[in-house]
Amino acid sequence: MGKKKVLIVGANGTVGQAVAQAGEGLWELVTAGRSSGAHRVDLTQGRSIHALFEAVGRVDAIIATAGKVHFGPLAEMSAEQFSIGLQDKLLGQVNLALIGQHHLNDGGSITLTSGILSEAPIRLGANATTVNTAVEGFVRAAACELQRGLRVNVVSPTVLTESLGAYGAFFQGFEPVSAARAAQAYLRSVEGVQTGQVFKVW
Amino acid sequence: MGKKKVLIVGANGTVGQAVAQAGEGLWELVTAGRSSGAHRVDLTQGRSIHALFEAVGRVDAIIATAGKVHFGPLAEMSAEQFSIGLQDKLLGQVNLALIGQHHLNDGGSITLTSGILSEAPIRLGANATTVNTAVEGFVRAAACELQRGLRVNVVSPTVLTESLGAYGAFFQGFEPVSAARAAQAYLRSVEGVQTGQVFKVW
Ligand SMILES: NC(=O)c1ccc[n+]([C@@H]2O[C@H](COP(=O)([O-])OP(=O)(O)OC[C@H]3O[C@@H](n4cnc5c(N)ncnc54)[C@H](OP(=O)(O)O)[C@@H]3O)[C@@H](O)[C@H]2O)c1
Ligand SMILES: NC(=O)c1ccc[n+]([C@@H]2O[C@H](COP(=O)([O-])OP(=O)(O)OC[C@H]3O[C@@H](n4cnc5c(N)ncnc54)[C@H](OP(=O)(O)O)[C@@H]3O)[C@@H](O)[C@H]2O)c1
Repeated sequence: MGKKKVLIVGANGTVGQAVAQAGEGLWELVTAGRSSGAHRVDLTQGRSIHALFEAVGRVDAIIATAGKVHFGPLAEMSAEQFSIGLQDKLLGQVNLALIGQHHLNDGGSITLTSGILSEAPIRLGANATTVNTAVEGFVRAAACELQRGLRVNVVSPTVLTESLGAYGAFFQGFEPVSAARAAQAYLRSVEGVQTGQVFKVW
Repeated sequence: MGKKKVLIVGANGTVGQAVAQAGEGLWELVTAGRSSGAHRVDLTQGRSIHALFEAVGRVDAIIATAGKVHFGPLAEMSAEQFSIGLQDKLLGQVNLALIGQHHLNDGGSITLTSGILSEAPIRLGANATTVNTAVEGFVRAAACELQRGLRVNVVSPTVLTESLGAYGAFFQGFEPVSAARAAQAYLRSVEGVQTGQVFKVW
């Protein structure tokens, strides 16, 4: 059996880099990102996702480690701000899965990213909790309908040690994990047999 | 203590009518809907929600029993179709809560609607599961940030006996409940002390 051809969208990010490193040697890696990677894609644009797969061809696994949400006080949150997470981290990843299902080889897999906020709300985090929960709901439902032995899972990391400088203040008392440890969950999703699962890393 | 002033958006629907009936006598009811009720509102339009509260004034409780999702095969689902549920049932209810929080009396409550599909995926239901899960995630997070003793919960009914004619084919083997029974969960949310809860009716 040859190496799996694995597309990582967001491969240059904190999570994505660790996943790429974990998959090196094991996989034929295809990296993509909005402004970095071998291929450029904007997950918020369906056209751009279609163009990505035309350029990349068929793959055995799709991994998304991208997605923005809005952080801000609930008392001041607007529908426009709330839409940021819905359009970017939620619909972006969902659309990668919807389009990607048709570019996967039989038995292939999709692995998306949520995060601990789906279960553990924090101040300013209503949009993040909603979006992460929604990604997990999508995965649970999509797993039941995917065809040709395709699988879909989601990795939910807690805050990464590498990101404490940026987000640490919001995650007081949360035990961080290394990006390398979070990356193992993506490997487990791609290499395993499970589907419709949330792989929690915390 | 006078009667609670309770706004029901979607008061003319299958769920909404039962909630209105359950609250009759107990509450000062204010009904609203897109094309029915004492007040007209389109939850997908922020401007329309603002106009609703200008007309209605301050309330003690807000109940939403409205919200559309897209049903269709995952293999053919487009981002546009997926957006229907995100814009209507998810962002519509979220925006009612975001705007409504500022029009509630101290100690008031918000009660939204999800549905059993958040936990039990069905064929064609990926958008519904995602949206229902997301509404529940929003409620869990928003409850932690609401001020002035405000509370927020969500009612998750299974399929209603009254709706079996319309949706029964999708819910084979699901035990239906009466709309009157589902309505009790809304009463429990408004009259109780809990917040951030999913009241399951099945
Ligand atoms: N870091 C953490 O502690 C942590 C913990 C739990 C969950 N998460 C989640 O994990 C995901 C990745 O986080 P991260 O910290 O690795 O983020 P990051 O370092 O900012 O990396 C994000 C990556 O995604 C790409 N990207 C962003 N928007 C995109 C778009 N619209 N289309 C295509 N690619 C896009 C970026 O590409 P360019 O660099 O080329 O612009 C970048 O490679 C996020 O969803 C985050 O919520 C992170
Ligand atoms: N029926 C079930 O078996 C069942 C089970 C579980 C969950 N649910 C959920 O419960 C909710 C209500 O279901 P239902 O069966 O009662 O629906 P329904 O009978 O179609 O009633 C929906 C109500 O919401 C109003 N409405 C629709 N779109 C609106 C908008 N954009 N802005 C303001 N009002 C709007 C309608 O107003 P007009 O009539 O004036 O247009 C109507 O009063 C839905 O979210 C549904 O998913 C239903």
